[in-house]
Parts: sequence; C-alpha cells; structure tokens
Amino acid sequence: MSTEPAMADPIITLTTDFGEADPYVAAMKGVILELNPAARLVDLSHAIPPQDLVHAAIFLVEAVPYFPAGTLHVVVVDPGVGTDRKLLYLELGEQRLLVPDNGIVSLLEQRLPPRRAFILSESRYWRSSVSRTFHGRDILAPVAGHLSRGLDPSQLGPATSTFQRLPLPVSRKEGNRIQGEIIHVDYYGNLISNIPGEQLAGRHVSRIAIGEQAARLVETYGQGGDGELVALISSSGLLEIAVPGGSAAQRLGASRGTPVTVELNPDRIV
Amino acid sequence: MSTEPAMADPIITLTTDFGEADPYVAAMKGVILELNPAARLVDLSHAIPPQDLVHAAIFLVEAVPYFPAGTLHVVVVDPGVGTDRKLLYLELGEQRLLVPDNGIVSLLEQRLPPRRAFILSESRYWRSSVSRTFHGRDILAPVAGHLSRGLDPSQLGPATSTFQRLPLPVSRKEGNRIQGEIIHVDYYGNLISNIPGEQLAGRHVSRIAIGEQAARLVETYGQGGDGELVALISSSGLLEIAVPGGSAAQRLGASRGTPVTVELNPDRIV
Amino acid sequence: MSTEPAMADPIITLTTDFGEADPYVAAMKGVILELNPAARLVDLSHAIPPQDLVHAAIFLVEAVPYFPAGTLHVVVVDPGVGTDRKLLYLELGEQRLLVPDNGIVSLLEQRLPPRRAFILSESRYWRSSVSRTFHGRDILAPVAGHLSRGLDPSQLGPATSTFQRLPLPVSRKEGNRIQGEIIHVDYYGNLISNIPGEQLAGRHVSRIAIGEQAARLVETYGQGGDGELVALISSSGLLEIAVPGGSAAQRLGASRGTPVTVELNPDRIV
Repeated sequence: MSTEPAMADPIITLTTDFGEADPYVAAMKGVILELNPAARLVDLSHAIPPQDLVHAAIFLVEAVPYFPAGTLHVVVVDPGVGTDRKLLYLELGEQRLLVPDNGIVSLLEQRLPPRRAFILSESRYWRSSVSRTFHGRDILAPVAGHLSRGLDPSQLGPATSTFQRLPLPVSRKEGNRIQGEIIHVDYYGNLISNIPGEQLAGRHVSRIAIGEQAARLVETYGQGGDGELVALISSSGLLEIAVPGGSAAQRLGASRGTPVTVELNPDRIV
Repeated sequence: MSTEPAMADPIITLTTDFGEADPYVAAMKGVILELNPAARLVDLSHAIPPQDLVHAAIFLVEAVPYFPAGTLHVVVVDPGVGTDRKLLYLELGEQRLLVPDNGIVSLLEQRLPPRRAFILSESRYWRSSVSRTFHGRDILAPVAGHLSRGLDPSQLGPATSTFQRLPLPVSRKEGNRIQGEIIHVDYYGNLISNIPGEQLAGRHVSRIAIGEQAARLVETYGQGGDGELVALISSSGLLEIAVPGGSAAQRLGASRGTPVTVELNPDRIV
Repeated sequence: MSTEPAMADPIITLTTDFGEADPYVAAMKGVILELNPAARLVDLSHAIPPQDLVHAAIFLVEAVPYFPAGTLHVVVVDPGVGTDRKLLYLELGEQRLLVPDNGIVSLLEQRLPPRRAFILSESRYWRSSVSRTFHGRDILAPVAGHLSRGLDPSQLGPATSTFQRLPLPVSRKEGNRIQGEIIHVDYYGNLISNIPGEQLAGRHVSRIAIGEQAARLVETYGQGGDGELVALISSSGLLEIAVPGGSAAQRLGASRGTPVTVELNPDRIV
C-alpha cells in the first residue's frame, strides 16, 4: 500500500488571464520565488479569457476544491486594477485564496463555506514600488510569498465579511419544466448549462431542448452516435449538451446565454 | 565538477489535449497533490490537438525517453472516455505511464520495450465518485498519486500483455526509391515525414520530392537560402522538409498525408 | 512574521518560442531532469512569437530581474541554430542565463550589468549526439543540468566579453518633443512604446499622439472612460497607449513601429 507522503514545501497555484506571450506571469513567479525559493508553483491556467469574470468563477469552482488543505491560490483576473476595488485574502473551506474582490469566487463560496477574509492594506508586505496597472506582481505575488513563509494572514489588513458577487444566471424549476441557459463553452465545444444534474435524478425526462433542437439524454459520450446531439451530466454535475466526436457549440451556433429547457414527465419515476 | 544530485521527490508529468482555458488540467493537479503534496508536477503539453491520437503518439516518442528512470507520465488524450476502452499502467523501458488503451504508445513501445502492464480495475485507488466523462481526474490522477507514494502497480488490476496499436503509415523502400508521407506538421510549419534518416545514410540522394516540388538535402537550416525548400534529418532522426525562415506547410499547402519521395542513386556511395 | 525560507532545490526557468503542441519543451525538461531530478523547473513562456528576438528581449527584461539571485534561465529563441552563432553562459547582475548569442539580452544587460560570460564549447557537458536543429535539447538543457548540480561555469568554455546586440529603436528627445515608437503589443492590445516614463516626470504634457490620434494622459486604466484612448506609464516604466476595456492595437490598427510623440509644455512644471 501507499506510504505517508513526506512533508512538502508550500504549494502556490497561479490562475490568470495574462496569456503566456507577455512577461506578466513570469514576473509574478519571480517575485514569489525571490521571497520564498522553496515555494512550489503550480500553473492552473493563464488562458482565462481576458477579464472574463464568469469564466474565472466557473474555472475556480471546478478546480480549487480538489487541492490539498492549505493550498494558496493566487488569481489575477482583474479588470478593476487601478480603481478602488479591494484585494482580498480569503479562506474558503480548507483552501486559501488571494483575489481581487470582483466576484470571481461567487460560485466557489457556495461550495466551500467562507471562514475568514482580510482586506490587503498593509503595504509593508507589498513590493516597495507598486505600479497602478499590475497588482498581481506588486501586491498579490509578494503577499503570497510572505504567506508561504508562515505570515499570519491577520497581519495583512482588516478583517471583512462582505465581498462582491457576480450576477450569475440561475436555472428555474417551475412544475415539470426546468429553464436554464448555457454558462460555459469548453475547449471541445461542449456546452455546460446552469441546470444541476440532481434536478433530473430519479425523474423521467420527456424532452431536453437547446434553442429549438432536441438532445437525447445519455450517460456517456460513447452512447451517442457520431454527430448526434446528446445531453448528459457533466463532470461538474451540471447538465451538458454535446456532439460526440464534434463541437456542439459550432453545430448549434450556441454560446453563453443560449437557453436550455428540460421537461420532466410527472407520471413516471425512473 | 558536478556533485551527485540530491534525492528528489517523485516526478509526475502531464500530457493532455485539454487546453488551458478549462479547469480540467487544474483539477487533475489538485487530485494528485491532494494524495501526495510532495509530487513534482511537470507539464509536458496541454495543447495536443483534441483527440488526435497520431499527434499524441509522435509527441510521446519524442519526449518520454529523455526523462529519468522511474518518471511517471500521465497522458489523457482519450476520445473513448465513457466507452469500454481500458485504462493502463505501462512500464516501457525505464519509463512508467498511465494511459488510455487507444494506441497512443504505438511509437513509444517500438523505442522502449514493454516490461509489464496492468489494467486499471481496482476502484479503491480511484476517486470515490467516478464521472463518466472525466477519467483523467477521477481515475488516472488518483492512481498517479498513489503510485508516487509507493503503491505497487500490481495492485492496480490484472496484468496484460496486449494493447491497442494505431494504424500508422509506414514508409516503403522499393529498390532505390523510398515512398513515405508527412506524419506531423510542427509549430514552425516544418514537415516531418515517416522516412527514417538512416535509410539515406551513406547513400547518394538523386532527388527528394514533396508533392511535385523538389527539396534540396542540407545538413542544417542555416545551409538553406531564405525561402528555399530544403530537406534535412530532423532532431528525431526522421526526414524533414523545411523552408528556412518560413513555413514549409504554408508554402506547399502540405499537411499530414502529403507524399514524400526519395530517389537514391544506385551508382554512387557517399 | 515570516520565518526564513528553507534551503531550496535549484531553480531553472525555461523561455522558448516552441509552443506547446510539439514535444520540444518536454524533451528539454526530460534532459534537465535526467541529469538533475531535484531541479525545480519553472515555465516562463513557450509562446514567444517564433524567432522574434525583439519580443524575447522585452520579455526577458520584464521577467528575469524579479527572480532570486542565482536562478538559472534557459532561453531558446534561436533562428541561427545550426549556423556558427555561439551559445553563451552569462551572469547578468545576480541572474544566470544560457542563451544563443543573438542579441536577446540586449535590454536585460542594460538593467543588470554583465559580470562574466563563457562560450559553450566543452562538448563533454552536452548530449553525446548533438542534432543540428535542436541545440536547446542537446546543448543548453544538459549544460543547465550540470550547472544546477554545481558545475563551475568556467568549465564550459572560454571566457568572452563581447556579445551580439539587437538594433533596437531608441526614443529621441529634442527640445520639448519626444519622438518614440511602439516596441511591443501585449495580449490585451495595449501598446508599449520605447519612451521612458521618467522623461515625463515633473513636466506638464501638452499632447501625446500615436499616429494622428491624441491620447489623454491618465494614471490608471480606471481613470479612462470605456473606449477612450489613454496614455499611462506601464508597469515596466514605459509610456503605454491603451483603451480601457478594449484593444488599442485593434482600435488604431497600430503595431510595432507605429510612431508615438509627446509634446511637453516648456512653461509649466507640474
């Protein structure tokens, strides 16, 4: 069987919308390692679409909960840099995050209950010169370096219990009809809706429609024919529309906001 | 001179077709680190073209053999997820791999002889809830975490000695003519053929043609004029067609499958 | 407060124009780790535009200085591979680099003074078989592995004090007029000029023009209206042209080389 893992150096993950052609991610890594050369940097993504807070929120709720307790996640999707938006240290469940206070944890905080939060205000933990356009490098990265060396987060600034939330669409269930919409299109062109899979559990589904098209409910991609429009419960537990071997987004011309409807059969329980 | 390297934490590499905009890679990293926070994660690529098994096979044979003995490589290019395709633990030479049984090791196993293989069936090493669409996160990642902590691979499931192979094109040598084709177009537009460079060694080459165009055999890109069509032996030992300072793929409109012909001069030995 | 960081394994960063679909980056990582499994690999970028030395030079000056003293940076943007261009080991300030001698450190060496440099010539630290097209894998990666294990860099080859420089454009200040140009377009479409921000410090600016268009000088993106053309001092200290919430590059059709003019008011000091 497995042996116990050894004590490991602190893990710091990075999630940004910086892309990789520019030196922004690299500069942040340098700042963190300069403060703590033993930090273990883990790239989550630098390909969040620029300034797309909804995408970032979905990304975080699908990724952050899997990490070991105590992992520190630095997230820079920050259209408000240079305005008076706050920067936060957050503990959600056993995860720790450094984020702009702009709603990108709106979904994550529903899954992992907030435990405490501090507003970053103590500039002695920042770079001595703070640019107005790059707080990832000048504030979040050095604060991450200090935290990874054991700094008590309460030193970072005043505690807070309020933070911003995104106006994310929620699916509605009315009688035997669930009305939702596409909230995410993935790399393969699969369409993820905001309809929780558990709303279909144990029920007989009469019809699933995306726009005007019907999709057949299956359990795996493999059950669909090549090119067939199917619906299934995604790896995140949400209703997903897919075309096995193809792109549902392209086939349907669908995108974020496209409506999805599920009709349940009131007379039959599976 | 160099000192001996210190004992290092276990290395786990990741190769996927997930792209980076979606949270799939991040979730896998979380699952591995949750089981073994000391694992050293190394990204090989998350830009394998979606579900492109041939590309993955070429990628693996060009990358995996360079790693230190005992490295564990997790590869998720898996169009068959959710069907009855198997997942495998493989030892090829001194390398260890976790892969779907879909042929992506077809080239690698020609270079590194298979030593043993097990079919992943013992679900106690998987996530407790396994989705039907994301075995990378739910099966391969946790198995990698357990292996990196010392789990004996024979615990993972029954041994096997058969696995899938891809129907990859092979070049043919008939008399003084070698007929092959392009099997890979790289980032620079260089065209990699399936003709082994050793078939040209010590021989005088009369003509190299790609489609209708002749390419001049050179030893380095630098020997070609700007914009000239040249042929050379690639870093992987295969005959490659290139345009110094440009893209051969674009110039010729060539792609995977474009024929390549080499004519050897029977009367002359270099 | 923070505790002292633990002794850490050696950090080796990687910056290339290889992209991620091909196995080139992965092969380099394998070669380094095979020589030193304890090396901590940090990806800076593999998305430098192919063979773009100016982009690489700007990238390095914005990233390298932030790293801890002694970090080893391997950079492969190498259009001259296979020609007689040299490969160098360089110490710039406290940073160590392995680079082709093609000018990519032209900006960095202005910020971090060169201390010593060696031409890589001792092939016993290279792979035993060196391809003519991939010196990143066959020379730079193994040399990095040896250095990270403590090899004295003077063993790599003869010392040198001359290396190539890029013909980068420099801004000119004539009287109250500064004439520069765009040298970098970032991921967001922000336009970075070659005009140092300090040339505007303490002066009243009458007009900033890019091509025929005037840009309003602001301190942060947030001070600009949506879609307004603004100028500000970038995170790297250079004058930058931006459109808050949009792409200045797209809006103006601007690119590298587009002229930028600043007119200072001689009668007013801020």
